[in-house]
Amino acid sequence: MSARRGPAAARISEPTVRRLSHYYRVLLEVEAEGKRLISSHRLAEREGITSAQVRKDLSMFGSFGRRGLGYQVRHLREEIRAILGLDRRWKVALLGAGNVGAALVLYPGFSAQGFDIVAAFDRDPGRIGQRLGALTVQDVSEFQAAAARESFDMAVITTPVRAAQEAADLAVAGGVRGILNFAPRKLTVPGHVALRSVDMSVEFETLSFEITRERSSRRRRPPG
Amino acid sequence: MSARRGPAAARISEPTVRRLSHYYRVLLEVEAEGKRLISSHRLAEREGITSAQVRKDLSMFGSFGRRGLGYQVRHLREEIRAILGLDRRWKVALLGAGNVGAALVLYPGFSAQGFDIVAAFDRDPGRIGQRLGALTVQDVSEFQAAAARESFDMAVITTPVRAAQEAADLAVAGGVRGILNFAPRKLTVPGHVALRSVDMSVEFETLSFEITRERSSRRRRPPG
Repeated sequence: MSARRGPAAARISEPTVRRLSHYYRVLLEVEAEGKRLISSHRLAEREGITSAQVRKDLSMFGSFGRRGLGYQVRHLREEIRAILGLDRRWKVALLGAGNVGAALVLYPGFSAQGFDIVAAFDRDPGRIGQRLGALTVQDVSEFQAAAARESFDMAVITTPVRAAQEAADLAVAGGVRGILNFAPRKLTVPGHVALRSVDMSVEFETLSFEITRERSSRRRRPPG
Repeated sequence: MSARRGPAAARISEPTVRRLSHYYRVLLEVEAEGKRLISSHRLAEREGITSAQVRKDLSMFGSFGRRGLGYQVRHLREEIRAILGLDRRWKVALLGAGNVGAALVLYPGFSAQGFDIVAAFDRDPGRIGQRLGALTVQDVSEFQAAAARESFDMAVITTPVRAAQEAADLAVAGGVRGILNFAPRKLTVPGHVALRSVDMSVEFETLSFEITRERSSRRRRPPG
């Protein structure tokens, strides 16, 4: 996973944003349970990190719990929601309507967080015109016109590797501000466009690395 | 994304493993181009990191380039392959055969890296018996017998949130050594099982955070 960004966001590290995302999820859960207050200890417990880290993260955004009482669940949830940009809806265009693209379109979790995949594009005549949930796959040649009409905020790239940079260029020309890339290659985008790359094989590899390492360290361990 | 692990793997950080995965991909590309040598500078360029970082990462595993010549592509590729545990095949069971599960089964990239999803399970009678690529979705009640027969190395959890911990317990009882969790909740597993959680919404949220932050910092900027 990698991200490129201008100076504005550089002060907040990616792991911090990931922790904020997780605090947000914990807060939603706790709120659903009807609780009004939450301690940094509880937020830390759920995340497997220290309560000091929680307090540090939250103080960075000007949110301070009250000693012995903790944080107001609803207030903190609303604050983090705004920080993460989840207090609005985001229009997302999908470029590449294969299996991965289809799964993303059909995944209900994104819409629940404010990310609406509102259009899907492909260049394969066999896919153009097919239904994908509530969408109809459009010819990628229609992308620019659709972008002008719909003002997509983000693009998701789920094309084959060879088409990924072209898709990114198209998305940038169409005015998106962020790109989520699932194609396993490095993309080049201008500095004003946020880019994040997701390679699902890497997730498996971190597991195979850990299992392999664990086994070989066992073999090296002297008996007794 | 989070990982838990025993002491053996704790010395190598997750970002290091992710960089190794990426070096491996660059090496495959460069090898396909017919090149025999690669500089740390080239490996760094592709990754957007410093060549000093590349040399540090690789020296950790005892691999040293020759000054002015660089690294032997094939040798280094084979070394990293073994370190990541990619010199063998991994048997993966899928628990939860919905949209996300289906996309993972149909994604060709995993098999190319040695991760074979060899069985898929669900508890929904509407899904049991359905074809998913080359697989037939099995009743989750058959998981234990299948695990005893097939010795799954890993499990992928793509169930709804409420079924995720139960699925993890089942996978652990079935003897898997690693779990890749796509359900947006924290799972508890014993220390000898590697666990990694992937929440796709978080990827969107890191983008919305960056775009929001960039915009609000522009608003705050004084004119002129």
